[in-house]
Amino acid sequence: MESFVTKASASAQPLKNADELIDSVETFIFDCDGVIWKGDKLIDGVPETLDMLRSKGKRLVFVTNNSTKSRKQYGKKFETLGLTVTEEEIFASSFAAAAYLKSIDFPKDKKVYVVGEDGILKELELAGFQYLGGPEDGGKKIELKPGFLMEHDKDVGAVVVGFDRYFNYYKVQYGTLCIRENPGCLFIATNRDAVTHLTDAQEWAAYVMCISILGGGSMVGAFVGSTQREPLVVGKPSTFMMDYLANKFGIQKSQICMVGDRLDTDILFGQNGGCKTLLVLSGVTSLSMLQSPNNSIQPDFYTNKISDFLSLKAAAV
Amino acid sequence: MESFVTKASASAQPLKNADELIDSVETFIFDCDGVIWKGDKLIDGVPETLDMLRSKGKRLVFVTNNSTKSRKQYGKKFETLGLTVTEEEIFASSFAAAAYLKSIDFPKDKKVYVVGEDGILKELELAGFQYLGGPEDGGKKIELKPGFLMEHDKDVGAVVVGFDRYFNYYKVQYGTLCIRENPGCLFIATNRDAVTHLTDAQEWAAYVMCISILGGGSMVGAFVGSTQREPLVVGKPSTFMMDYLANKFGIQKSQICMVGDRLDTDILFGQNGGCKTLLVLSGVTSLSMLQSPNNSIQPDFYTNKISDFLSLKAAAV
Repeated sequence: MESFVTKASASAQPLKNADELIDSVETFIFDCDGVIWKGDKLIDGVPETLDMLRSKGKRLVFVTNNSTKSRKQYGKKFETLGLTVTEEEIFASSFAAAAYLKSIDFPKDKKVYVVGEDGILKELELAGFQYLGGPEDGGKKIELKPGFLMEHDKDVGAVVVGFDRYFNYYKVQYGTLCIRENPGCLFIATNRDAVTHLTDAQEWAAYVMCISILGGGSMVGAFVGSTQREPLVVGKPSTFMMDYLANKFGIQKSQICMVGDRLDTDILFGQNGGCKTLLVLSGVTSLSMLQSPNNSIQPDFYTNKISDFLSLKAAAV
Repeated sequence: MESFVTKASASAQPLKNADELIDSVETFIFDCDGVIWKGDKLIDGVPETLDMLRSKGKRLVFVTNNSTKSRKQYGKKFETLGLTVTEEEIFASSFAAAAYLKSIDFPKDKKVYVVGEDGILKELELAGFQYLGGPEDGGKKIELKPGFLMEHDKDVGAVVVGFDRYFNYYKVQYGTLCIRENPGCLFIATNRDAVTHLTDAQEWAAYVMCISILGGGSMVGAFVGSTQREPLVVGKPSTFMMDYLANKFGIQKSQICMVGDRLDTDILFGQNGGCKTLLVLSGVTSLSMLQSPNNSIQPDFYTNKISDFLSLKAAAV
């Protein structure tokens, strides 16, 4: 696993003066699950809060480690919930994988082997990269019998691994061959989350009931075991997306506030990137978890939900 | 990954006086692949060498990280090759998993969930443990759709993970639920080898051609990713098998010589256990690999093959 240095910080403060925070930053990065919505339900007051922030000229960015959907597919989810969000405001780890390959000028005559779902394929296609694997390898099997010799494509220059419910031996074997035997082949992970965030109401229910659903970390772990290499992670809490945003829009990282419901991904992601951080208690983290002596990750501020921006603002007037 | 402290050792010496080594130890532990056989072929001079060692009253033990076969099934392999070896002399990591559970008095009313092949099931059965999973879960699928809720057996008290060519999402999800949600559930790995040792002639051919075939490390890695826990490893290079042997037979570890063809599993295993170590060059390690400045693992001695025990003995007379 990567290790990140967590900045030594004092205990998180309850957010009291929202205006002060809002005025001090140019961009808000929001995690989605537990911040904007829970499953198929918007969290109270989200549309009004986003409208208020936009009216103040703030840039809004929505990030998710879920790689199963593309930006476009996420856009539809926002639309369904009645939120107007452009594709450019959405940073899913599927997009991050393609953006990373673009950022390093990954050659267009090389191919990407995908262990993951449709979102990654869609983003690679949009970015103009050639790929193979993905869902179509879900039914493939290997028979380790005499005479067996697995051929692999020598033009694969990167293996991208994300959450994949059709994960199997074949895919790990194929991707491992590429990583181990194609000179310079990259090993890229969309994320290493132990449990996944699924956005369906039932799945969310299962999730908050602590019925752990495997995350991308499991698929990535299989490759770490077989290749004995560490992946380059493009999703949270790696800072790639933050660096990309700062670079693309010319934002100072101290002018960004990361808002999320999870300490070990969202808040750590913000802190790794040198941003301000706000924990909302509308998702998986409770106040007692935040204040537990076992927790070493302290955001700058915490509050119940993002619509507190409205009430705390009103109170301050 | 576990980290083991490698004892600082001088460069390996070529074995010159086999009698001196033989006289100084009571037990020889042999790795099998690359030491006793390659695929379906015995390595030259092995039967005579084993006979000589037995005639001198040496205890012989054969270890393998391969968990796909039980001791009994390995016994047949030895028999087919014309070697007389008793089941008690064979320590496969399948057996080690069952022996470990016995050693900690794992309750007989608890169950073991198996991600692995037939060898593990057979050994658990012989040891009197209840198990589920294994090959029969190879065809199972999960649909992460609304309404999905995976039930798991609350009586599973240990998950044993080894090489499994029918590895799939279902098994990782099931085992992860047990590890994360059953209080005290153990996470046991037969081994973490990145590539596997298969004993079939064709597979061995593929292996030496550096066509990497996934090892147990890949299956274990998936669980490390999903549970964020480290497994208890019972195979090489963990010292469990060595401790078990020393304990069972009352042997001083300094009275054991570990003979193997791999530096990072066999020789490290011997060194971790405080044994003498002999590298044979009849498997995957060449003299130049041993003497490379990049290699930090130095056995006490090295020689071409175990039958050098006979010629070096003759020369010494």
